[in-house]
Amino acid sequence: MKNDQASFSVQLRSAILSKRSAVCVGLDPRWSSLPSNIRGEIEHQNRRAVAQATAKFCCEVVDAVEAFTPIIKPQAAFFEQLGPEGMQALASVIQHCRKRSVLVLLDGKRGDIGSTAEAYADAYLGVESAWGCDALTINPFLGEDTLEPFLRVANDRSAGLFVLVKTSNPGSGFLQDKQIDGEFIYESLADLVQSFAKPTIKQGYGSVGAVVGATYPEQLSSLRKRMPNAWILIPGYGAQGGTAADVAYGFDEEGLGAIVNSSRGIIFAYQSSEYAGRDWQHAVAEAARDTARQIWEATGP
Amino acid sequence: MKNDQASFSVQLRSAILSKRSAVCVGLDPRWSSLPSNIRGEIEHQNRRAVAQATAKFCCEVVDAVEAFTPIIKPQAAFFEQLGPEGMQALASVIQHCRKRSVLVLLDGKRGDIGSTAEAYADAYLGVESAWGCDALTINPFLGEDTLEPFLRVANDRSAGLFVLVKTSNPGSGFLQDKQIDGEFIYESLADLVQSFAKPTIKQGYGSVGAVVGATYPEQLSSLRKRMPNAWILIPGYGAQGGTAADVAYGFDEEGLGAIVNSSRGIIFAYQSSEYAGRDWQHAVAEAARDTARQIWEATGP
Repeated sequence: MKNDQASFSVQLRSAILSKRSAVCVGLDPRWSSLPSNIRGEIEHQNRRAVAQATAKFCCEVVDAVEAFTPIIKPQAAFFEQLGPEGMQALASVIQHCRKRSVLVLLDGKRGDIGSTAEAYADAYLGVESAWGCDALTINPFLGEDTLEPFLRVANDRSAGLFVLVKTSNPGSGFLQDKQIDGEFIYESLADLVQSFAKPTIKQGYGSVGAVVGATYPEQLSSLRKRMPNAWILIPGYGAQGGTAADVAYGFDEEGLGAIVNSSRGIIFAYQSSEYAGRDWQHAVAEAARDTARQIWEATGP
Repeated sequence: MKNDQASFSVQLRSAILSKRSAVCVGLDPRWSSLPSNIRGEIEHQNRRAVAQATAKFCCEVVDAVEAFTPIIKPQAAFFEQLGPEGMQALASVIQHCRKRSVLVLLDGKRGDIGSTAEAYADAYLGVESAWGCDALTINPFLGEDTLEPFLRVANDRSAGLFVLVKTSNPGSGFLQDKQIDGEFIYESLADLVQSFAKPTIKQGYGSVGAVVGATYPEQLSSLRKRMPNAWILIPGYGAQGGTAADVAYGFDEEGLGAIVNSSRGIIFAYQSSEYAGRDWQHAVAEAARDTARQIWEATGP
């Protein structure tokens, strides 16, 4: 956290308004997609070199997008894939974000029972966290009792949590769309998130939010109303098919209350004909600026 | 994997029979519970020293229990809690297991969509895995389509997967016990696991299994029948209240088909009056031997 006095929710709101951007830049640093001048002559088996180059790439992305995004979302899987050296890279990327004016939301989708849930929460959000993230995504499958340790630890540091409610993948209905007593599971989860958000409301929103995919605009619209005090993290914009008009359903009447994730469309913008002829850092910066503007125009205050 | 020719299922079966043990030793190395001669004068803020001592503790546990357990289950959260140095410790513990005759099941409960799920699978189970685990626990909340990348990658290396079906915590019914068209969600998940297990059956069992808690013996019994070809990983034995009679419901008529996890009861056995007067390594070894025997007598062939 940049400032342990202010809650995650207040920091996020203030960063969105000052940067006029509700874009969350997702760091999914797939090695095969990294720019050739980052990959150089490094063989993919050379894990230490791959991890170091990945960290360098991510830190340069952070520098390029900093002005256009309130929050960066590293995807844990792509760092775990590189082994312990990849986790060292993740730590240095998070540290770099903390030196810049961006919040860090780790996308780990963690979930476990009792003291194990507490260990995850403590790892990423605790007062003595070794990683020092501002927020974490969590998975509710194991039950409400398994979310409580996350809430407790996050609350101690006014950190943020985003609970999976309706994910962006084509098969997300498998459990999430099942109906119990006339209510969809994603609706029950949304009610839970709203109840978690309530005790920490400041300036309209609490520090517990929900993940709802842009690929389900109808649900996004109904869930926005159902969770009036919960931030919504919206994945699925761009590459997965969600449009600016779709994500608009996740915002409140003042144009706040949601952040829209874009990963590939920004961090690998140099691959797009739209940004041809720039070096990759400028392509990334322009894509972040353009994405922020598109979303702000469709949704912002 | 010890032998990339043999599937996870075959290796597990063979190790259970040769060691006469269906105990899975869970490595949950909570720093405050570690023996005082491991913790020494190390301050808990000194993460590098804590991580190194944690690795030393876990490797000595592996040596102490090796003869009495076919499979070791490191809990990712407790290593993540120690930051990047903790992940280095996890890597060295896994390497140590690979040098010994024990399989490694990483308890990470990972789950994500598409290429991110693939990155997790590749990380822990892939042909070029940086970690080199034999099996991984996964979370089905995001949908069947998000399990497919795990299945594909695991299958390439004949590695194992354990899907959460009915977890051991008191609140696991929150989603898992909801009924849809007369079927509990844990039953639908079990059917899915059985269908995943079928294509890889060798000597009765496939390489995709399920997690079902010892704390729900009735469900354990019905799920055993419902998934005749899926290994069941049974947590919740001992400290959480499950007994040898409870876990027996998870085994087939030949006394196979399940592994029973015990973490605290074994790795922190030196804290128990039952094993007073031994050094901690001997307490751990005796507890592993005793647990293996209790479970074998209640369930084994």
